[in-house]
Amino acid sequence: MSVTAAKGFVASGVESGIRRSSRDLAVVRSLERAVGGAVWTTNRVQAAPVVVSRRHLETAEPHAVVINSGVANAATGRAGIADAERTALEAARLLGLRTEEVVVLSTGVIGIPLPMETLLAGLRQAASALTREGGADAATAILTTDRSPKQAAISGDGFTVGGMAKGAGMIHPRLATMLAVLTTDYPLEPGEPGELLRPAIDASFNRISVDGECSTNDAVVLIANGASRIARDPARDQQFAEVLGDVCASLARQIVEDGEGATILIEVCVSSASSEEEALAVARRVATSPLVKTAAFGRDPNWGRVLAAAGSAPWNGGFAHLDPDRLAVAFNGTRVFELGAATGRAPELHDAVVTIELDLGLGSGAASYLASDLTYDYVRINAEYTT
Amino acid sequence: MSVTAAKGFVASGVESGIRRSSRDLAVVRSLERAVGGAVWTTNRVQAAPVVVSRRHLETAEPHAVVINSGVANAATGRAGIADAERTALEAARLLGLRTEEVVVLSTGVIGIPLPMETLLAGLRQAASALTREGGADAATAILTTDRSPKQAAISGDGFTVGGMAKGAGMIHPRLATMLAVLTTDYPLEPGEPGELLRPAIDASFNRISVDGECSTNDAVVLIANGASRIARDPARDQQFAEVLGDVCASLARQIVEDGEGATILIEVCVSSASSEEEALAVARRVATSPLVKTAAFGRDPNWGRVLAAAGSAPWNGGFAHLDPDRLAVAFNGTRVFELGAATGRAPELHDAVVTIELDLGLGSGAASYLASDLTYDYVRINAEYTT
Repeated sequence: MSVTAAKGFVASGVESGIRRSSRDLAVVRSLERAVGGAVWTTNRVQAAPVVVSRRHLETAEPHAVVINSGVANAATGRAGIADAERTALEAARLLGLRTEEVVVLSTGVIGIPLPMETLLAGLRQAASALTREGGADAATAILTTDRSPKQAAISGDGFTVGGMAKGAGMIHPRLATMLAVLTTDYPLEPGEPGELLRPAIDASFNRISVDGECSTNDAVVLIANGASRIARDPARDQQFAEVLGDVCASLARQIVEDGEGATILIEVCVSSASSEEEALAVARRVATSPLVKTAAFGRDPNWGRVLAAAGSAPWNGGFAHLDPDRLAVAFNGTRVFELGAATGRAPELHDAVVTIELDLGLGSGAASYLASDLTYDYVRINAEYTT
Repeated sequence: MSVTAAKGFVASGVESGIRRSSRDLAVVRSLERAVGGAVWTTNRVQAAPVVVSRRHLETAEPHAVVINSGVANAATGRAGIADAERTALEAARLLGLRTEEVVVLSTGVIGIPLPMETLLAGLRQAASALTREGGADAATAILTTDRSPKQAAISGDGFTVGGMAKGAGMIHPRLATMLAVLTTDYPLEPGEPGELLRPAIDASFNRISVDGECSTNDAVVLIANGASRIARDPARDQQFAEVLGDVCASLARQIVEDGEGATILIEVCVSSASSEEEALAVARRVATSPLVKTAAFGRDPNWGRVLAAAGSAPWNGGFAHLDPDRLAVAFNGTRVFELGAATGRAPELHDAVVTIELDLGLGSGAASYLASDLTYDYVRINAEYTT
C-alpha cells in the first residue's frame, strides 16, 4: 500500500530537524536501472527544486527522489538553486547515482532558505535507512498541514503501481502544492512514463480542489524499473494505464478528504453538457465556489448557489453553455431543481460525502470534480500558518 | 450624499414584510422625463427581474426602479417572470408611468417565490412615501447581509451624480450580487447612459472582490433626467464622466469595506506589466486568492503567497507574463521581495488597509484591484445564510 509496493524500490523518512519534531526528509529510490517522467507546476514562479529537477530530467532518467518538507525553497534566488543542486549532488554521491538521476522536491514555506547543514545531515541518515518497509515513513515525511499520510498501491497482472502524495491546502487543477511520487515495476521505455502520466493526472489530480490555489512547487514523478520482469502486450499496457490512473485517483481523493479544515467531501458530477470541456468547466466552477463550499459546510443543499456558480463557468472567453429551463440539479440523488424551478424536495446532508449532480440537458459531455468544504478551520490554518 | 442628491429624483424605502423587521422594498423615481441605461450580470442563469427589466429597456427609457431584498426571484421559472412583470405593472400604475419605464430588481435567496401580496402592499406604501429625503431609507431597504448602507453623491459644474449600492458577499469582476442605482440631473441623450456606464463600471465594480462569486441578479442602472438644465460642452461632458466614475469608485470601495466578515481592505496595485490586461489579470488573481486573503486576516505580509498567486494569473489561455527575478513586492510601501529573493524586511500590518504592490519590471501595464480578507465570519455568514 505504499511507494515501495512495487518490486525493486526502497524508501525512508527521517527527522532531519528542518521542521520541529516530525519526519521531514524522505528518499525514494529504485534499486534497478529505471526510466521515469514528471509533470511540473505551470506557475510562472517555479521553486528552485523544480527548476533543477526539470533540468536533470532533460538529460537523464530519474532513479531517486529526495523530498523535504517545511521549507519550499521557492523564491530563494540563485542561492536556492545552488542549495537544490547541492542536495541532488550529495544524494547522488550517497546512493551511487549520477546527480542528474536525482529528483529533488520541496514543500513548505516560501521565501526562506533551506537549512543546508541540517538537511545534508538528515540526507545521510535517510540514505542509510532505505528499506522495502520505508514507504510509510517516507509518506509521513513529506506532509505539511496534512493530517494523515496518503498512500496507494494497486497490482495488475504481474506488476504493481505504488505511490504517495502530499496535498492538503492549495489544491487546484494545475497541480497546486501537491507532490506525488509514483513507482512501478512495469517495464516502460524512455519517454513513456511522461506520456502515461498526463492522462492519469488530467483525470485525477487536475480534478480536485481545496481552495483553487496553484503553487510554485507542484510535481508528480513516476519511476518505472521493470523489476516485474513481465513481458508487455497491448492488453497489459492497457491495464497498466488503468492501474496508474486508479492509483492517481486514490491519492487525489485522499488529498481532498484531507483538505485543510475539511469536514465533508463534495463530488460534483456534470452530465449532458454541450461538450466534455464545458462539463469540466462547469464542474470545476461549482466545486471551487466558496459559496457552494460554505453551504456544504453548513450541510445546506443550496442549489441556488450551485446554479449561480454553474451559470458563470469560464469557458472559451465567455461562460459555458447552460439553459436554466433544461438544467436539473440533484443533491445525493434527490432532484431539487428541474424545469426552471425548485422541486420542493430538500435532502438532508448527513454523510461525509455530498454528491451534487448537474444534468445540463444539452449534449453528451460529462465530467466530475472533487472538492472539500470551506470551514472555520481552513481560515484558522491559513491565517496562522505563516512565513 | 444619496440617490436623491441630483435634482428631480425622489425615493423611499419601506418595511413590506418580505424580510422580517427591516426595510426591504425601495423605489427610486425621476420626476421628469429621463433617459437611462443599465449593465446586467453576465451569468447564464439570469433572475426573473433581470430578464424582465432588460426587455423593458429595449423599448423604453427607465423612469423608476423598484428593488426588493430578501428574495432574489431567481430560478423561479415562468411564475417568477410573471411576478416581476406584475411588480412593474403595479409600480407603473401607481407612479403614472408605462410598465416598460419601470426597472425591477431583486436580491436575496435564490429559488423561492416572491410573496406577491406582501410585496404589492409594500409597493403601494413605498409609492406614497416618495420624497427628496427618501434616499437613505431606499439605501437601507436594498441590503441583505450588508452591515451598512452604501451611498455616494458628487457634484460637478452645475450637476450632481448620486447613487446607492448593495454588495457584501459574492462580489466579483462580473458584477456579482451587486445592485447599484445611479441618478443624475445631467442632460444626456438616449443611449448615452449605457455607453458611459461601461468604462465607469470597468474601473470600479469590476475591480473588486469579496469572494470571486458571480450572481444571477447583478445590475447597475443609471437614470439621467436633465433637471440641472445646464448646457453641455466637451469639458462638462468630460467632467461628468469623471464624476460618474468617482461615484462608482466610492460605492465599489464601500462594498469591499463591508464585504461579508471583512476586517481589512486589501488594495492590490500592479505596475510595469507587459500590458494593462496582464496587469489586471495579475491584480485580480492576487486579490481573489483565498491564501492571500487569509494571510491578510492574519495580518501576515505573506509575499510568498502573493508570488504564487501572481505566477498563476489566467491570461490568454495560459498565465500572465511574470519573471520572479524582475518582480518586486511591497506591503504598505515596504519592499519585501526583489531581485528574486526576500529583502528581510517585514512590515507590520496594523491599519484597516493593506496595500500590496507588485512591480513586474516588464512593461508599462498597470491596474489595481480591491478585495476584502477571508475570515471566520465569512464562513459563518455563508454557512448559516441558507435557502
